[in-house]
Amino acid sequence: MKIAVLGTGSVGNAIGTKLASLGHEVRMGSRTADNPKAAAWAARTGGSHGTFADAAVFGEVVFNCTTGNASVAALRAAGADNLAGKVVIDVSNPLDFSRGMPPSLFVGNTDSLAETLQREFPAARIVKSLNTMNCDLMVDASRVPDSDVFVAGNDPAARAAVSGWLREWFGWKAPIDLGDLTAARGLEAWLPLWIRLWGTLKTDFNIKVARAR
Amino acid sequence: MKIAVLGTGSVGNAIGTKLASLGHEVRMGSRTADNPKAAAWAARTGGSHGTFADAAVFGEVVFNCTTGNASVAALRAAGADNLAGKVVIDVSNPLDFSRGMPPSLFVGNTDSLAETLQREFPAARIVKSLNTMNCDLMVDASRVPDSDVFVAGNDPAARAAVSGWLREWFGWKAPIDLGDLTAARGLEAWLPLWIRLWGTLKTDFNIKVARAR
Repeated sequence: MKIAVLGTGSVGNAIGTKLASLGHEVRMGSRTADNPKAAAWAARTGGSHGTFADAAVFGEVVFNCTTGNASVAALRAAGADNLAGKVVIDVSNPLDFSRGMPPSLFVGNTDSLAETLQREFPAARIVKSLNTMNCDLMVDASRVPDSDVFVAGNDPAARAAVSGWLREWFGWKAPIDLGDLTAARGLEAWLPLWIRLWGTLKTDFNIKVARAR
Repeated sequence: MKIAVLGTGSVGNAIGTKLASLGHEVRMGSRTADNPKAAAWAARTGGSHGTFADAAVFGEVVFNCTTGNASVAALRAAGADNLAGKVVIDVSNPLDFSRGMPPSLFVGNTDSLAETLQREFPAARIVKSLNTMNCDLMVDASRVPDSDVFVAGNDPAARAAVSGWLREWFGWKAPIDLGDLTAARGLEAWLPLWIRLWGTLKTDFNIKVARAR
């Protein structure tokens, strides 16, 4: 499959590298066509790279791996027409580092970053997923056995497609379908507790939704 | 031990009933001395009941089981002097039902209800705990085996005491100590995802912090 990965940070690298290793054609997008991190990634993996728009035109499916406060601008640069009708997997988090550590959230409670993106790009099929864990775990569910991943989005077929890809590409056996994109409020609001646990446990971990006997 | 339970709802009932069954002297507090729900609970369990102040005077430890938007008023009625030096286990959540379902949070992100209470009652030893699950599970960890409970508070000795009580009274084998009360931001921010999961799964569940192999 032809896949666009928007963003050259650790999340984009992890997802792009894993997908390339599975034989997909991956194009990493960034603000400029000559981004040295994207070029180095492409040289290492056999993928290609270009602007956000180059990647969005190329991809049949798009991963938004940009930092949260740059996501709207990145998707605008990718181009609404280039995203129209495509599944856009939104991995971003609305982290606000402007007041120091730990970050707060710049949107939340009665709204979410995923919903913001969906309003801005109504023809894109936004599915929130994978934002609840670190990037090494995103692409290899076996690192924390028997833990959970979620999908949320307004298009049931897009949620089902993403659930299937999570299983096939990254080893997530049973993604939890939370329904429409308002669930992204909860998925993004998980970050403050995730960050606190990360500082406390100092080891890889993930949420597991434990069920009653 | 003499224990105060502030609040006559399902949380106060579950905690008060469990503690009374363990042989503790429990006093349920509410706004008025003649609250019929508190009286019925006392008749059923052998506990006592009275005003918030009656309960706070009586208790060596205090559970805040009031609804979040009434918690400040309830603790004011309990009396700052009656709470001074005591461990106050804050089980409340800042749920705002004024805009319909699902509720949003009336405080969050860079603050929390627990921190609001601590600022208002600086001599009380507030420990946030148990707010992350339903009340049947709070008092019986075996309902969702191998799941987690958290403690957060500014007084390490109070956190340790609460962790011990959670183990002894309710069966929580290894409460996760998240440190100071700013962690309550994360614990309260878990509620939007909890509510969404509750609507999706339609079964008892709890968070488990799954660790890497």
